[in-house]
Amino acid sequence: MTRHITSKELSEMDKQERVHVINSLGGFKSVVLVGTSCQKLKPNVAIFSSLFHIGANPPLVGLVFRPTPPERDTYSNILATGRYTINHINESIYRQAHQTSARYEKGISEFEMTGLTPTYLDDFSAPYVAESHLKFGIQFREKIDITINHTTLLIGEIIQIYIPETCLEKDGFINLEKANTLTCSGLDSYHRTIQLDRLSYAKPDKEITSLLKD
Amino acid sequence: MTRHITSKELSEMDKQERVHVINSLGGFKSVVLVGTSCQKLKPNVAIFSSLFHIGANPPLVGLVFRPTPPERDTYSNILATGRYTINHINESIYRQAHQTSARYEKGISEFEMTGLTPTYLDDFSAPYVAESHLKFGIQFREKIDITINHTTLLIGEIIQIYIPETCLEKDGFINLEKANTLTCSGLDSYHRTIQLDRLSYAKPDKEITSLLKD
Repeated sequence: MTRHITSKELSEMDKQERVHVINSLGGFKSVVLVGTSCQKLKPNVAIFSSLFHIGANPPLVGLVFRPTPPERDTYSNILATGRYTINHINESIYRQAHQTSARYEKGISEFEMTGLTPTYLDDFSAPYVAESHLKFGIQFREKIDITINHTTLLIGEIIQIYIPETCLEKDGFINLEKANTLTCSGLDSYHRTIQLDRLSYAKPDKEITSLLKD
Repeated sequence: MTRHITSKELSEMDKQERVHVINSLGGFKSVVLVGTSCQKLKPNVAIFSSLFHIGANPPLVGLVFRPTPPERDTYSNILATGRYTINHINESIYRQAHQTSARYEKGISEFEMTGLTPTYLDDFSAPYVAESHLKFGIQFREKIDITINHTTLLIGEIIQIYIPETCLEKDGFINLEKANTLTCSGLDSYHRTIQLDRLSYAKPDKEITSLLKD
């Protein structure tokens, strides 16, 4: 049986229920830790599931910010310093990563509260998460206000990358499963993945084939 | 061993290799089929991995469009008709879904070429994918030009939803694994998932717990 939910039913739904439905509906999401520091160099880390790819040349990613805490600390740090790090979440840290979403008082470091370890790499001013296997550093480029619901899109350029050698395949594909990168769904569900296949570039007159060796 | 890639190395990298690296780097992504029709009602379907959640009230999602075909058919159909559908991809259709990314001639329906079945539900003008288990209909709301790399963000409001009853949990969470929804990474890798846990709402002074029954 299929449940059909109309726009009217959605607007009359209990608020928390609607939040779960709509957050689940978009499918599996990237889930990462964003590392920042304020100008006094206090390290901050927060979990985000709104990271998305914008383009490869220049290498750009977007992050959506809601107008409420705790995301606002990350937001104001990015605008103040121009730098932030993106750190993939693996099975050994996903509970700590989730805990960073608690509304700690301003000035309290989620690193200290959750036991995640800040680490500074190659003179980049924002902290990385030491426990993360795959991470990259961003230079802030552009802020776009999404007026329709008072959220903000921050666009940044990837300027340094750290990848375990074993995860980087010959053609540039990164094997996220070898890095134990997780995905999330809804507000609170964490998942590991099992690769089904890599498929060849699709062409109108050609059957697609598997890129994986037998 | 960790491979460190600097901004300079990234800009000097072979173009295709960079495309793979940057597309992989953002982590696992939502992968969906977007159904549209032009004003003459010819159904069109295309795969996208750039869908992201913008907010729950109003229920908004974003999609990023590159300035090149074949995405431009979907883009112009959305601007012309204001309506589109989002259809989750499951294991039985991911190869056909991937094939929709081929650059077919304008006027050729990817539905016909791939064997996916268009279906029209509750007088909604855009076609759904019959083989998809979880799908929803969107009303276009706002276009934002991302001038930094000539891409475009289209924001739409979710106005109808179809969910298998068995996937919808009491609190509104949608069990995507029961719908066999897949995730993707990079440009061409498809994955199913295994849920690790659902975690309780994080609070500063409280240990997080599992929301799953033992």
